[in-house]
Amino acid sequence: MLPNQVYPVVWNHDRVLLIDQNRLPSEYTLVEISRCDDMAHAIKTMIVRGAPAIGVAAAYGMYLGAREIEATNRDQFLAKLERVAEQLRSTRPTAVNLFWAIEQMLKTARHTIGSLDHLKQALLDAAQRIQQADLETCRSIGDHGLAALPPGKLRLLTHCNAGALATAGYGTALGVVRSTWNAGRLERLYADETRPRLQGARLTAWECAQEGIPVTVITDSMAAHCMQRGMIDAVVVGADRIAANGDAANKIGTYSVALIAKAHNIPFFVAAPVSTIDFNIASGKDIPIEERDASEVYQVGETMLCPPGVEYYNPAFDVTPAELITAIVTEFGAFPPERIQAELSPIS
Amino acid sequence: MLPNQVYPVVWNHDRVLLIDQNRLPSEYTLVEISRCDDMAHAIKTMIVRGAPAIGVAAAYGMYLGAREIEATNRDQFLAKLERVAEQLRSTRPTAVNLFWAIEQMLKTARHTIGSLDHLKQALLDAAQRIQQADLETCRSIGDHGLAALPPGKLRLLTHCNAGALATAGYGTALGVVRSTWNAGRLERLYADETRPRLQGARLTAWECAQEGIPVTVITDSMAAHCMQRGMIDAVVVGADRIAANGDAANKIGTYSVALIAKAHNIPFFVAAPVSTIDFNIASGKDIPIEERDASEVYQVGETMLCPPGVEYYNPAFDVTPAELITAIVTEFGAFPPERIQAELSPIS
Repeated sequence: MLPNQVYPVVWNHDRVLLIDQNRLPSEYTLVEISRCDDMAHAIKTMIVRGAPAIGVAAAYGMYLGAREIEATNRDQFLAKLERVAEQLRSTRPTAVNLFWAIEQMLKTARHTIGSLDHLKQALLDAAQRIQQADLETCRSIGDHGLAALPPGKLRLLTHCNAGALATAGYGTALGVVRSTWNAGRLERLYADETRPRLQGARLTAWECAQEGIPVTVITDSMAAHCMQRGMIDAVVVGADRIAANGDAANKIGTYSVALIAKAHNIPFFVAAPVSTIDFNIASGKDIPIEERDASEVYQVGETMLCPPGVEYYNPAFDVTPAELITAIVTEFGAFPPERIQAELSPIS
Repeated sequence: MLPNQVYPVVWNHDRVLLIDQNRLPSEYTLVEISRCDDMAHAIKTMIVRGAPAIGVAAAYGMYLGAREIEATNRDQFLAKLERVAEQLRSTRPTAVNLFWAIEQMLKTARHTIGSLDHLKQALLDAAQRIQQADLETCRSIGDHGLAALPPGKLRLLTHCNAGALATAGYGTALGVVRSTWNAGRLERLYADETRPRLQGARLTAWECAQEGIPVTVITDSMAAHCMQRGMIDAVVVGADRIAANGDAANKIGTYSVALIAKAHNIPFFVAAPVSTIDFNIASGKDIPIEERDASEVYQVGETMLCPPGVEYYNPAFDVTPAELITAIVTEFGAFPPERIQAELSPIS
């Protein structure tokens, strides 16, 4: 790992260090996590967020949970590890990478032979492999995305933060942005602020500022106006779960951006690792949508935005139908959404 | 005027009282305005905002300016009054009601004969007439809007605040909501929070809470998701300026809502007095769009949302093309946008 780049989850000697993403951009703070309970809490409260980063964090959470297990035999260990998995699965319902990473860790435990100490070490190795693989995956996504973009100097728009902070590093949607920037092809990134939690304003802008990538923050409602004025050449977003038909669940507001991009004939790319695709789910209608606390809508910092006597609705994600997506950019290439089943589905 | 209703501009003995809309909903404060300078400042800093309310405030501003004029003859008075008009015109470039109200006041001065004292009194009378007429206009808009809405119990969506606070009282878009509520036909109002200045969360929600109108606040990015889920029956918004072809400039984000409503076949209504229509402007392309300070995007209360080293774009309005508008609801009825020229243009 290069020292000057952003890594939200770092294994350090005997514990995990997380960048506290709730405190960015005003404070850069590292949170030390030594226990699975604390990792579950960090995922739930979004100290770590972004589907692939949650996967990496959960993998380490599985190891931290395993490390604490006292068992007299292998079956007892595996039964207790399943309870650790259950705790981590309950943190965020939408991101499929969470379930995928937990499953990888359980498979590792089931398929490793030897002492319990050996088994625990195998789980740490597996978590580190998941992390390293995600980083390489993001770099591939970035390069495949660049190849799929329109030619020339580009003004890209993104929503939320599918960046280094949301992955093991480099990012999915921001991986495409980084590859475009590194190739000298990025004129400017427009970042939707992404209410209610402002991941665009706080995190995407922070990542770009760290690396000198030119970024303009707009409110979510300004994207359509920018497109009308010819200021945007393509949209690149991440995904938390993609159904077999190519429907993609991502941060609330993504569907809105997809609709307005379509209305302006602007290509709309979803960048995500294959682990984000849930081939068990036929269409976006079946993806569970997490609803979060109303305070995210009515409060920013110490400021109450709304008067008493008001109701709120706070879905954390929405579903963009496949027909609005130009291509899904994975580590194996960019595919029209209707092709992912044929191209990427595991042979079962 | 009924005492339990919201009036943003009130003439009280010898001065104007404005509800300070920047302090709502956390504080209800009245600002006393006795001089035209202070009124210009109040309009510019959005203590008073909303196109028709700005018109009413500017009319009183014209009187307050006139009251201070020392002149030895009528021509000198009119020349000085033109300078007052110039100061008020420079406050907000998009709202046509501002220019309309100032022009009405100048006409009153030009066409009134008698002493300068008599002339000044005529200007106060004219400002009060503009205010009273706007209130009646809003009630008519509300009733015509209700007649134009789909049948049955309705879940309406609005953007920004085109309410009592934005007019002399009752509101344009919220006038339609109030008439629907008074007729027992409103199930719920969904209010976009309306970044960056949060007029929906702060002002529309406050108005509704005052009167017990059921309101759910959502972030701007959630509207498309709500429509996809079948939660919205119609959209009603206001306008700051409407071109002769029916293109409508309104708060930034309105164009986005219009696009997503169209994608879901949900009717989209623009509610505005005829004074909002600028028949001198052929299409929305010619409407000047005010850009406001970047701090509106990067700061909420004391909280800095973005890191240093970032750029911003902060257009205060956008233009919704006529083809996305189901009808423009005026005090004379609801008309498809392509009919307003024939139905409402003054005979010149």
